[in-house]
Amino acid sequence: MKIPPVKGTRDFYPPDMARRNWIIDGWKRVSVRNGFEEYDGPIFEYLKMFQIKSGDEIVEQLFSLTDRGGRELALRPEITPTLARMVNQQISSLPRPIKWFSVPRLFRAERPQKGRLREFFQWNVDIIGVDDVLADAEVIFCALDYLQEVGLTPADIVVKISSREMLAALLLTIGVAESELEDLYAVLDKRSRLPGDTFEQMLVEKVPDENKRKKIFELMAVESIEQINDLLDLTDAAKESVDELKHLFELLGVMGVADFCVFDISTVRGLAYYTGIVYEIYDKAGELRAIGGGGRYDNLLKQFGGPAIPATGFGIGDSVLAILLNEKGLLQKQLPSRKLNYFVACVDKVYREAAVKLTMKLRSAGFAANFSYKAAKLSKQLKQASDQNAGRCVIIGDEFRENKLAVKDMATGEQQLVDYDKFFAELK
Amino acid sequence: MKIPPVKGTRDFYPPDMARRNWIIDGWKRVSVRNGFEEYDGPIFEYLKMFQIKSGDEIVEQLFSLTDRGGRELALRPEITPTLARMVNQQISSLPRPIKWFSVPRLFRAERPQKGRLREFFQWNVDIIGVDDVLADAEVIFCALDYLQEVGLTPADIVVKISSREMLAALLLTIGVAESELEDLYAVLDKRSRLPGDTFEQMLVEKVPDENKRKKIFELMAVESIEQINDLLDLTDAAKESVDELKHLFELLGVMGVADFCVFDISTVRGLAYYTGIVYEIYDKAGELRAIGGGGRYDNLLKQFGGPAIPATGFGIGDSVLAILLNEKGLLQKQLPSRKLNYFVACVDKVYREAAVKLTMKLRSAGFAANFSYKAAKLSKQLKQASDQNAGRCVIIGDEFRENKLAVKDMATGEQQLVDYDKFFAELK
Repeated sequence: MKIPPVKGTRDFYPPDMARRNWIIDGWKRVSVRNGFEEYDGPIFEYLKMFQIKSGDEIVEQLFSLTDRGGRELALRPEITPTLARMVNQQISSLPRPIKWFSVPRLFRAERPQKGRLREFFQWNVDIIGVDDVLADAEVIFCALDYLQEVGLTPADIVVKISSREMLAALLLTIGVAESELEDLYAVLDKRSRLPGDTFEQMLVEKVPDENKRKKIFELMAVESIEQINDLLDLTDAAKESVDELKHLFELLGVMGVADFCVFDISTVRGLAYYTGIVYEIYDKAGELRAIGGGGRYDNLLKQFGGPAIPATGFGIGDSVLAILLNEKGLLQKQLPSRKLNYFVACVDKVYREAAVKLTMKLRSAGFAANFSYKAAKLSKQLKQASDQNAGRCVIIGDEFRENKLAVKDMATGEQQLVDYDKFFAELK
Repeated sequence: MKIPPVKGTRDFYPPDMARRNWIIDGWKRVSVRNGFEEYDGPIFEYLKMFQIKSGDEIVEQLFSLTDRGGRELALRPEITPTLARMVNQQISSLPRPIKWFSVPRLFRAERPQKGRLREFFQWNVDIIGVDDVLADAEVIFCALDYLQEVGLTPADIVVKISSREMLAALLLTIGVAESELEDLYAVLDKRSRLPGDTFEQMLVEKVPDENKRKKIFELMAVESIEQINDLLDLTDAAKESVDELKHLFELLGVMGVADFCVFDISTVRGLAYYTGIVYEIYDKAGELRAIGGGGRYDNLLKQFGGPAIPATGFGIGDSVLAILLNEKGLLQKQLPSRKLNYFVACVDKVYREAAVKLTMKLRSAGFAANFSYKAAKLSKQLKQASDQNAGRCVIIGDEFRENKLAVKDMATGEQQLVDYDKFFAELK
């Protein structure tokens, strides 16, 4: 009986797994050097946890299940609700600031497309307990620290940054009611992904007043923070958030990553829980979906039953990132190939036991080693050693009766007879 | 709104995550040095895939879900069916033998107990394409290579080994019908976990004939391979599998792990797909559930629609292993603590930008570094550096105007004034 894999999932054969590990190991290494500690939660949570404050878009995409006890559960589509739950559970004992990262496997029941899968990995980096835009700058730096390390430059990627707090203040100035803001964000967030007239039609529904709508269009066309001053009379709240955004760009300059960052007022983020700085990372050519994005979510912990604690963070998925790295030739260039330290061959089956014993000793000493299951022709075994990318091949032949091994350097082809004990004494 | 985690799942706070990573990284490292390559599959598969040949026990424990397209799916309770599916899909292009490992996250909807969770990790190591008991010995060695590396000795753990093929031949000799074997395995497998009379009652149901039952009891009381000869007249098939088992023990001796291994005829394994050598790894004190187990499953690939290819492998879960390592004090002793290379402090907020810049430069250079978000008192910042286990603390004070940094060794307390450029030139 032949059963296929489920659509939108991936099988990771060893070459795919090597790629996945290379990406995830890089995420982990950069997170650690940026001072973050790793956490993780369960793959599934109570369904209602994802309904609290994640916006309708995500709830529609849940894989839900009911367990034998009748509990309604869902596979996690994001880890931020879990983060909020975990932090709230131990809030009184966790030293602050909380600088945590995670590389959860996530699930979304949406139509699989290029760069969008039903099952994927996402790098999440968050700072909880710092109300300073410095924390926002730091997490953006962390993302760029990784993206630079894998070879991406400002010619390849761009971080589009805005502030929801500022946008709110500006929309209120235009005359949009506070209660209409959230719905409006969802529409504005879709702007770049929709045909112009579809977008306009959606906007007409949310903002029937033509005059207001015209102002919104003008606002969304703004290309620099300075232009905002010319367009509208800023309230104090608006001024404050404009200044915060300016300060963020200054800090990104101090951190040495300003070349990657631009102001983009149309960056809103789909998720309902963002409250301040928001950003999305795109390929410069604009041909792919967002590589990642994030922002400040100062109300989320409270919404999850905890105290009011400021928080900021980002998520970067593995799918779009891998497509981009592949297109730029960066994956192929950097992916380490499988390497075996030793391959142990034997010229006759009488030496097979010796070969097995020697291989196991090498492994226990920490060296990656393989042997041939069959005492095949030596040329065939050497071919196997070479196929497995072995650095050296140890050949057990008749010299073994005098306690000697032939050791062949697979790169140079050079071969030496070495004393058995000396071989082990000099292993490196 | 406060929502709890789902029963039987785990939250991995940074200390828990460090433990999980330490265990899994060890599994990976030992697998690679034993010549295995990593693979993984999706978290969910079609439900029917797990119904093919995994025995009723596992199917009862599935977390199943229906997607929006009405497809019946299940969270994977084991990875072997996925392995069979993946190998079959690429059978003509994969070089053999296939030596693969994986560390899947698995799910079982059973009552959470000590060492048994609804969500756990399992180390899986398999060799596909080798019909030699040498492959069985090699995977057992691989398991023991890891278990020895983390400090477990023959005083702590034991591998109980038998052969289903041999047991089948012996039961047939006793007069059990071939068609009754599978049901009987399920009962025999439960023997050590059931009260004596419950077991006997279950056996009466399966084997009504008292004479046969007596023979089965005698057989299950056998303590060495040699004793089997005294008990029964062996058929050729039985002799062959007895010899294979003896050869396995010889090979384990050659590999240097015989001290960990014993023959135990009552080791049967619950899963229906095992065909030959089977084994389970237990704590020597016998206080915990099995740490892991495995065996030969030569028919599985065929049952999954592929060609007939021999296969053998094991699985070791993280839960019981962690309990044992914890009890033996091995976790505490070996778990690396979080370490920061540098903590960057500044004595006044005028130097904060410099501190931020320096921290980011350190991180980009590959060093784990943190800074203080607030220009708090130096003593407070030094306390933070020490809490975060920083190796050195860089203090930016008034000497910074002359391009100098104070660098404090946190272990010795020694402090030096260093030139800014020289500091970066000499980083290590």
